[in-house]
Amino acid sequence: MLDKTRTPDDVAGLMAGIGRTARAAARRLAVASPAEKTAALVAMAAAVRAARGEILAANALDLAAMQGAGQAASFIDRGTLTPARIEAIAVALEDIAALPDPVGRTLAAWERPNGLKIERVATPLGVIGIIFESRPNVCADAGGLALKAGNAAILRCGSDSFESCTAIHRALVAGLEVAGLPAGAIQLVPTRDRAAVGALLSGLGGNVDVIVPRGGKSLVARVQAEARVPVFAHLEGICHVYVDKAADLAMARAITLNAKLRRTGVCGSAETLLVDRAVAGSHLGPILDDLAAMGCEIRGDAEVRALWPAALAATEDDWRTEYLDAILSVRIVDGVDAAIEHIETYGSHHTEAIVTGDAEAAERFMNGIDSAIVAWNASTQFADGGEFGMGAEIGIATGKMHARGPVGAEQLTSFKYRVIGTGQTRP
Amino acid sequence: MLDKTRTPDDVAGLMAGIGRTARAAARRLAVASPAEKTAALVAMAAAVRAARGEILAANALDLAAMQGAGQAASFIDRGTLTPARIEAIAVALEDIAALPDPVGRTLAAWERPNGLKIERVATPLGVIGIIFESRPNVCADAGGLALKAGNAAILRCGSDSFESCTAIHRALVAGLEVAGLPAGAIQLVPTRDRAAVGALLSGLGGNVDVIVPRGGKSLVARVQAEARVPVFAHLEGICHVYVDKAADLAMARAITLNAKLRRTGVCGSAETLLVDRAVAGSHLGPILDDLAAMGCEIRGDAEVRALWPAALAATEDDWRTEYLDAILSVRIVDGVDAAIEHIETYGSHHTEAIVTGDAEAAERFMNGIDSAIVAWNASTQFADGGEFGMGAEIGIATGKMHARGPVGAEQLTSFKYRVIGTGQTRP
Repeated sequence: MLDKTRTPDDVAGLMAGIGRTARAAARRLAVASPAEKTAALVAMAAAVRAARGEILAANALDLAAMQGAGQAASFIDRGTLTPARIEAIAVALEDIAALPDPVGRTLAAWERPNGLKIERVATPLGVIGIIFESRPNVCADAGGLALKAGNAAILRCGSDSFESCTAIHRALVAGLEVAGLPAGAIQLVPTRDRAAVGALLSGLGGNVDVIVPRGGKSLVARVQAEARVPVFAHLEGICHVYVDKAADLAMARAITLNAKLRRTGVCGSAETLLVDRAVAGSHLGPILDDLAAMGCEIRGDAEVRALWPAALAATEDDWRTEYLDAILSVRIVDGVDAAIEHIETYGSHHTEAIVTGDAEAAERFMNGIDSAIVAWNASTQFADGGEFGMGAEIGIATGKMHARGPVGAEQLTSFKYRVIGTGQTRP
Repeated sequence: MLDKTRTPDDVAGLMAGIGRTARAAARRLAVASPAEKTAALVAMAAAVRAARGEILAANALDLAAMQGAGQAASFIDRGTLTPARIEAIAVALEDIAALPDPVGRTLAAWERPNGLKIERVATPLGVIGIIFESRPNVCADAGGLALKAGNAAILRCGSDSFESCTAIHRALVAGLEVAGLPAGAIQLVPTRDRAAVGALLSGLGGNVDVIVPRGGKSLVARVQAEARVPVFAHLEGICHVYVDKAADLAMARAITLNAKLRRTGVCGSAETLLVDRAVAGSHLGPILDDLAAMGCEIRGDAEVRALWPAALAATEDDWRTEYLDAILSVRIVDGVDAAIEHIETYGSHHTEAIVTGDAEAAERFMNGIDSAIVAWNASTQFADGGEFGMGAEIGIATGKMHARGPVGAEQLTSFKYRVIGTGQTRP
């Protein structure tokens, strides 16, 4: 399905033009009013609903190609659109429309002794490149969230959803036009050629400010390795639950079960359980029994296997593995400091939880762990923009620059300083 | 003065070890109390004072080498330490000690309907690499500011100040040790070998979180081009003053004169003056007369030269040039929108000022300009962390990620989310 009619030079030229168009659109969006952006998002939702037949027809082409290529059923399911899924795309756009506008917020304000008023106000970031894999709804979600924060978006979809995304994108552009905003505010890379990804990662001559990859580990790893601009992403979520000696057993059971098994394929699912040696005798068995009863495979260290013999043997690799499956590695540790040491050695700085009734141990854990999210007596599966009350997220970031944790509309903004004087000059 | 005794492999190994040491120190600093950091900074100041003789002796070696190499007098002056300059280094450390601690601040806090409390709290960034040129005081300023924000610092000084920085660094380490903090919290790269810079820019295997270059345009350009980690910097400050039709003439004269000539070598000095055509007849002459009387060279477009014939002819290159000298390019524009267009086309997103009595024009300018700092009726030379009330700055950034404008202790922090529950699991 590669487009053989374009040469690499054509793709470079095409992408350079997309970058310039995006930058020009971003300048217009930077001064767009909240009402204009809301109107565009509401009009996009209406246009998506109106284009339902067209989108389903486009999706049928994608599905036929996926079936022809022998893709797995789960993969094809992720790429499948139904009337209900198309309605969900429209509702998501309306939800974004209803969020508070993150641009123009006064983040800080103070006055200097010389009378200068200084304000730090939120501004758009500029141009956001979004590279995503099979789910076509990301096209609308990411484009809409970028717009809400006053940013232009360059969307690069997976080849398998190219026709579906092209149809959805047409509806997004229709919504922009209804609101009088530039069509270039949300562009979809109009070719399946893989050279376009490399071009986007290069930053298109300064016309891309940040890249957000949405997909599997190999996509994120490539983007992190090759991008010449900042990236908001997490490579993996090796999340931990630590059951402290002061943990309530019932709470530890409920949280561990939820953290591991509520959904195993999400980045906030727990991959490793650490249990304080002081309560291993009383707590380990019931927790692992719960998990095993729900079909979870347990891989433990020697001490775990001595206490709970059904466990398989964990290897060093297990501590570094994001299973994204019903498998849990389990280790006995000597208290909160050893738990911190394990997590800082093997973790991925995503989300970690401590279960304890001891406030001092909880503080020590939450301060000592260098992760985007640290939870006390709550499941790691709350690692989600919606659960945080952000309304929508474009992903979760584990880097320490700018955006960390769930990346919602606020996190897609930058800021500037406004200095307001009455003629002051600097001595 | 290259150290010929080391092979490139030795330098790679040396730098890798420095990275690991810094990461280990950063973990300790992340949980250091405000009192520990304050004690270290105060002890550093005392150690700098106590080492005055040693530092002056080391500086004498650097100065001799600079003279031997035929360096310019201004360059040698920047590298010269005196008892007064050493005292200033100590006072600067005490000033940093007295700043509020930026770590642990609650940046936001809210509660979810399910009872989860969510807090966003400031954390250290981690490890900061600082690459600087001749002034040895940067060694103490940058190391001290990084420490204040709980970060480990890896300092790479210019070859010309290597002996001076080594002596200052010894005093910083003495201060750390007095406070019981790890000596590895502030490391100075102990070789002049240039391969060390490349290693630092590579990020030392994930052990450097951000790089701050302090020096001339060629250093910053190299760092921006080669760094594989985020960079806080500005390449240049092509700052503008726009005199609007509603500008008070006396204010426009005072602000333009200050913005251009208070100091010509700082990044916040104005390089281009834009004058609204509507007041060119009345305002241009007096403003340019002031500047010319102070020895400033004027380079104008054809309209400027028609009104003020002593101006030299500006070329297209002039609009893109940071003179860092007593030279100003001047252009007549059609109102605020044309001023915005010029600045967005030729500027460097650093600092721009509008002089006007018209609040609507000022809003339009401040919203339409995508620069780190936008000023209304104030000189561009206020672009400075001290003038902003931040107490100290490590530099000024023009990127849009994380830190923008003056980079003080607060800007050297990241954040994490703390989720505090009572046993919540996600439905």
